Amino acid sequence: MIEEQGSPAITVEAIEAAAARIAGHIRRTPMIEVTEVRNRPVANPLFLKLESLQVTGAFKARGAMNRLLTTPREKLAHGIVTASGGNHGMAVARAGFLAGVPTTIYLPPNASRAKIKALSEWNATIRIVGEKWDDADAAAAEHAAREGAIYFHPFKDPDVVIGQGTVALEMLDAVPDADVYLVAIGGGGLIAGLATVVHARNPKARIIGIEPTGSPTLHAALAAGGPVRLERQWTRVATMSCGMTAPLIYDIVSKHVEEVVLVEDEQLLAAARWILSEFAIRADLSAAAAIAALNLGKIRLKPHERIATLICGADDTALDMPE
Amino acid sequence: MIEEQGSPAITVEAIEAAAARIAGHIRRTPMIEVTEVRNRPVANPLFLKLESLQVTGAFKARGAMNRLLTTPREKLAHGIVTASGGNHGMAVARAGFLAGVPTTIYLPPNASRAKIKALSEWNATIRIVGEKWDDADAAAAEHAAREGAIYFHPFKDPDVVIGQGTVALEMLDAVPDADVYLVAIGGGGLIAGLATVVHARNPKARIIGIEPTGSPTLHAALAAGGPVRLERQWTRVATMSCGMTAPLIYDIVSKHVEEVVLVEDEQLLAAARWILSEFAIRADLSAAAAIAALNLGKIRLKPHERIATLICGADDTALDMPE
Repeated sequence: MIEEQGSPAITVEAIEAAAARIAGHIRRTPMIEVTEVRNRPVANPLFLKLESLQVTGAFKARGAMNRLLTTPREKLAHGIVTASGGNHGMAVARAGFLAGVPTTIYLPPNASRAKIKALSEWNATIRIVGEKWDDADAAAAEHAAREGAIYFHPFKDPDVVIGQGTVALEMLDAVPDADVYLVAIGGGGLIAGLATVVHARNPKARIIGIEPTGSPTLHAALAAGGPVRLERQWTRVATMSCGMTAPLIYDIVSKHVEEVVLVEDEQLLAAARWILSEFAIRADLSAAAAIAALNLGKIRLKPHERIATLICGADDTALDMPE
Repeated sequence: MIEEQGSPAITVEAIEAAAARIAGHIRRTPMIEVTEVRNRPVANPLFLKLESLQVTGAFKARGAMNRLLTTPREKLAHGIVTASGGNHGMAVARAGFLAGVPTTIYLPPNASRAKIKALSEWNATIRIVGEKWDDADAAAAEHAAREGAIYFHPFKDPDVVIGQGTVALEMLDAVPDADVYLVAIGGGGLIAGLATVVHARNPKARIIGIEPTGSPTLHAALAAGGPVRLERQWTRVATMSCGMTAPLIYDIVSKHVEEVVLVEDEQLLAAARWILSEFAIRADLSAAAAIAALNLGKIRLKPHERIATLICGADDTALDMPE
């Protein structure tokens, strides 16, 4: 079922429609409570949505699948293109594979080798360009203009953001009464989709974003009153690296996100090691963001508050990063 | 709550009591349906109980915790001892840590280095002995006799078997109507506990065991009409290596298990790689047994039959085994 459309508004109704649209093409992942752990990050009840079990290993399959299913077939004749540090690229490569159209993924050189190998298994053409994600983004946009390919943008594309938001509907089904949501930010697509749902369905809850100190994209935008281009980025976490967010993301985040806190790469790595040792999940470093922020006491919490977060993706090599 | 007792019968009522006893000390793990995968092992509906998310990374925490909570405190004065290729050892080390008593784990040299490191983090004393699990078992039994320590045996101990059976109660809660249960066998504790529950609560279901060709412990016992000692074992999968099962296991398996099928180590490794690529879980090789057996067409199935199995444990290094 393909729906012709212009630029859809990011609303909870659009996200509910997306959930129905993509249901047969993604997995409904479990949400578990963190119990019986050593070095508990926080005394509060803590729930993890395990999107590491999602197809292609991350929530990104949701947005890419929604983008595919809202794009008329004839528009895909010249293929699909995207720029991605890994997880979104995997999701787009799978979408292109399912659609049977040529798919090109532009990658920054800090993408993981395991992801590059996995991308090739979805028959995607891989182009490694520039120094950071923004260079890959520019190359992908140029490719789209030149070839007539459809750019599945990881966060500027409202249908992608709407698809990402479906994870929040499932989180609310599993844990209807969370008080605090902790969400890692790269470009901001996930937190924008999630915030749209949580604001509509659980409006008293607080939503807090987490970014690496080496790529404070939304943190800087909130301080500046609008999207700004970072002068430099020094995080080694490809999935959380983004030079500038988009107005559609900023608008939602500035309205519904209480705060964006910053953590160091090394703290993400330590948190990912804890997740591995306690749950045998090789989280990617963005998936460790909430645990890292809690470990550091960066999240202001009342004792009764229940926390919901996501293991947003897996990366079999993230833990091989040098300490 | 400690209950003095003799040698308890392995019954579904005992397993239900164990589930209540250990509930606050283990995790209730999710069960997921296998959907949206490439190279699907079988067309039938297939459900995975994710014991890789269990505390210490395997179902073994259930049996060890039940053994601890059924042992009077004063009997633990001289410590706890066991022999384990890894997962049971981890579970016993945690039990000893929680009880605050000295715990000694005897290991065969094919145990994974990651498990050995993890054991030491539970403050266990580690002794690597002999060539295979049976040598570690003999050393642990001798240690128990010499020191007065309590041997938490991985499958000869009915309280351990009863604890393992609790996983089947949760599987039935999640998927009440499975037709076929596929269970990896090392010494047989898991399949004996599971078969006791399934026979009582879902009696029409078929239960099939899986062993490596290099350690066909129960396969040989069923052929011989009772436990027999294998002349040699050549599997490299420590968690599925056992020279001889115990009469209490044989009695249950011979009554309630339809068949034990055999798979090669290499097939286990290939199945573990598939689990990693589809679900981002680094299963240990025993956890890949059901997928391997299905891939090989070794399980006779009718098209409508629904299959339940377990990702019984995780091992961060299993996939590093040479191909």
